[in-house]
Amino acid sequence: MAGQNSCSNNKKSKACGELEEFDAIFPAIVDDLTKTGLKDIEISDAIQWFKKVIEYNVPFGKKNRGIAVVTSYCQLVTNPTKDNIRRARVLGWCVELLQAYFLIADDIMDSSITRRGQPCWYKKPNVGTIAINDSYYLESSIYVLIKKYCRDQPYYVHLMELFHETTLQTVIGQCLDLTTAPPQGNVDFTNFTLDRYSAIVKWKTAFYSFYLPVAIAMYMAGISDTETHANAKTILLQMGHFFQVQDDYLDCYGSPEVIGKIGTDIQDNKCGWLVVQALNRVTPEQRQILENNYGRDDESKIKRVKELYRDLNLTHVYTEYEESSYKELKTLIEKCSGSLPKEVFMAFADKIYKRQK
Amino acid sequence: MAGQNSCSNNKKSKACGELEEFDAIFPAIVDDLTKTGLKDIEISDAIQWFKKVIEYNVPFGKKNRGIAVVTSYCQLVTNPTKDNIRRARVLGWCVELLQAYFLIADDIMDSSITRRGQPCWYKKPNVGTIAINDSYYLESSIYVLIKKYCRDQPYYVHLMELFHETTLQTVIGQCLDLTTAPPQGNVDFTNFTLDRYSAIVKWKTAFYSFYLPVAIAMYMAGISDTETHANAKTILLQMGHFFQVQDDYLDCYGSPEVIGKIGTDIQDNKCGWLVVQALNRVTPEQRQILENNYGRDDESKIKRVKELYRDLNLTHVYTEYEESSYKELKTLIEKCSGSLPKEVFMAFADKIYKRQK
Repeated sequence: MAGQNSCSNNKKSKACGELEEFDAIFPAIVDDLTKTGLKDIEISDAIQWFKKVIEYNVPFGKKNRGIAVVTSYCQLVTNPTKDNIRRARVLGWCVELLQAYFLIADDIMDSSITRRGQPCWYKKPNVGTIAINDSYYLESSIYVLIKKYCRDQPYYVHLMELFHETTLQTVIGQCLDLTTAPPQGNVDFTNFTLDRYSAIVKWKTAFYSFYLPVAIAMYMAGISDTETHANAKTILLQMGHFFQVQDDYLDCYGSPEVIGKIGTDIQDNKCGWLVVQALNRVTPEQRQILENNYGRDDESKIKRVKELYRDLNLTHVYTEYEESSYKELKTLIEKCSGSLPKEVFMAFADKIYKRQK
Repeated sequence: MAGQNSCSNNKKSKACGELEEFDAIFPAIVDDLTKTGLKDIEISDAIQWFKKVIEYNVPFGKKNRGIAVVTSYCQLVTNPTKDNIRRARVLGWCVELLQAYFLIADDIMDSSITRRGQPCWYKKPNVGTIAINDSYYLESSIYVLIKKYCRDQPYYVHLMELFHETTLQTVIGQCLDLTTAPPQGNVDFTNFTLDRYSAIVKWKTAFYSFYLPVAIAMYMAGISDTETHANAKTILLQMGHFFQVQDDYLDCYGSPEVIGKIGTDIQDNKCGWLVVQALNRVTPEQRQILENNYGRDDESKIKRVKELYRDLNLTHVYTEYEESSYKELKTLIEKCSGSLPKEVFMAFADKIYKRQK
């Protein structure tokens, strides 16, 4: 029985148990963030609004990142206390809040329509650009929770610095992404190289999605030395790279009902893994086809790009890459885990590599 | 001569000296934030972009808030060291960065056209909604600077918590403001009360513009007890209230060349001091005129609202308020300063109360 003072670690059968436990504390998180303010007549209208912001934008993701804090922590510490498991869950929700902060802006900047199977927040009636301030609120909430739950912990400063640093890294990645893909219609593949692609993935996604949850768990477990963190980072950034390649693949080939969004990378002129692989394989004639059809919000042009992807056999290229990258990752884990239990990384890896099966 | 190791304190003649010194370190701040990243080929394009973001959005304000950190610090500490004056200046720029973070979003949410006499950042070609991510960057920079300059100081945690808390307060104020003023055309004066107005001012402006700079200086000077901070906050929030009343007055009656922006409160349906005062004085017929003309982007309707303000003699109401609020503030300073030198507050007050003369 999964109780408040246990958490799933290396046993896969317990994995869904942790999702339930993780979800179960969400109402308490909302309470932590809103209870006092709702009673203050001066600001209660604002806090009521923010309650809706949290409830709409934070709990409906896959929550892999948040849960990874809890599972990693339980793999690093034997017999964790009830209080510390709760702390890990709260910090897991902080990672989810950070993601929600970025996704709200992401959706506005990409003119997205849906997110996690529902309309994007900024698309809701009476929201619009107010969503920008709402995203600011979600980021602020992170530090309210860290202060409430970890102020007396020896790793309090580490946590604040880690969230600051990760936020900056993600902002840098977002900027690389936005400035690499010019607005629709201005197709320019000059920057669509594998190097640029890898940089965007590392900075925009891998730091916050892969290093951050494990790093939080490490600090909680008293592991703060630079070398162990650097090694973990190496492994986790590589994992993040594969995850994004897979995400790009699913944007084109995944079914909207399963991935919870309608892919728009082709019309949004995104520097995704598929177009980069295509550019490395095209004849001059095929490159012209790409230039004429990529980055336009036009069903027939999107279809033409997808036909070209099929001609270039990109599904096969992806399958080959998936296999070889998994092998590489296992080798890296053997080499770089050091004093950390390999399961911390393997559990994470297995969750990702099987996610479309 | 004002050198690197002196700062203006209570002598008014030195005030412009500090502005020069404050401005003089700005290039070093930009360097601190961009130098390493510009050398990293992976992210140098993003950092080049952010360099422009800082240089366009941060240095062109009045810088009263940033400078207030330095002058307050020099009033609290006798013979401050060169290093500490520099720290105060850097933290002053952090306040300016926080403001720039909010102003970028503010301008998008209000559909503003100009800011500080130049086009709003989001209005520049090739920027648009990317400005949201740019605002995130400016906030992240604050913590880069605090870490670089204050990591080893005993007040490091206080500073981080203070910036977190102030950011949240401002976000709450922004939300109150945005949800009080429904979109153009939907005029509803139900929430346009003096209480609501005072709440918006306190949360959206006064914490970050008035308490924050002095609180930073207090922490730097080793003053961290709750009571002294609470008393300073009482005085400074009252000062902030008057400042905003004045700002609202200038939005309508100030000349655009002097205030650096074209006022849009009337057409933006803002819950400003003037309309609140008008609503407290109108006849039912005059209220109807307000309801028919406020909150519309139409020159003739704006003019009609201004005529009504004139009929209600609001300029006189303002002048009376200015005088009585200055007297009240002086009384409050006498009562609440405690161990803090009164000049910390008086210097600040005199700067504000004379700003339109």
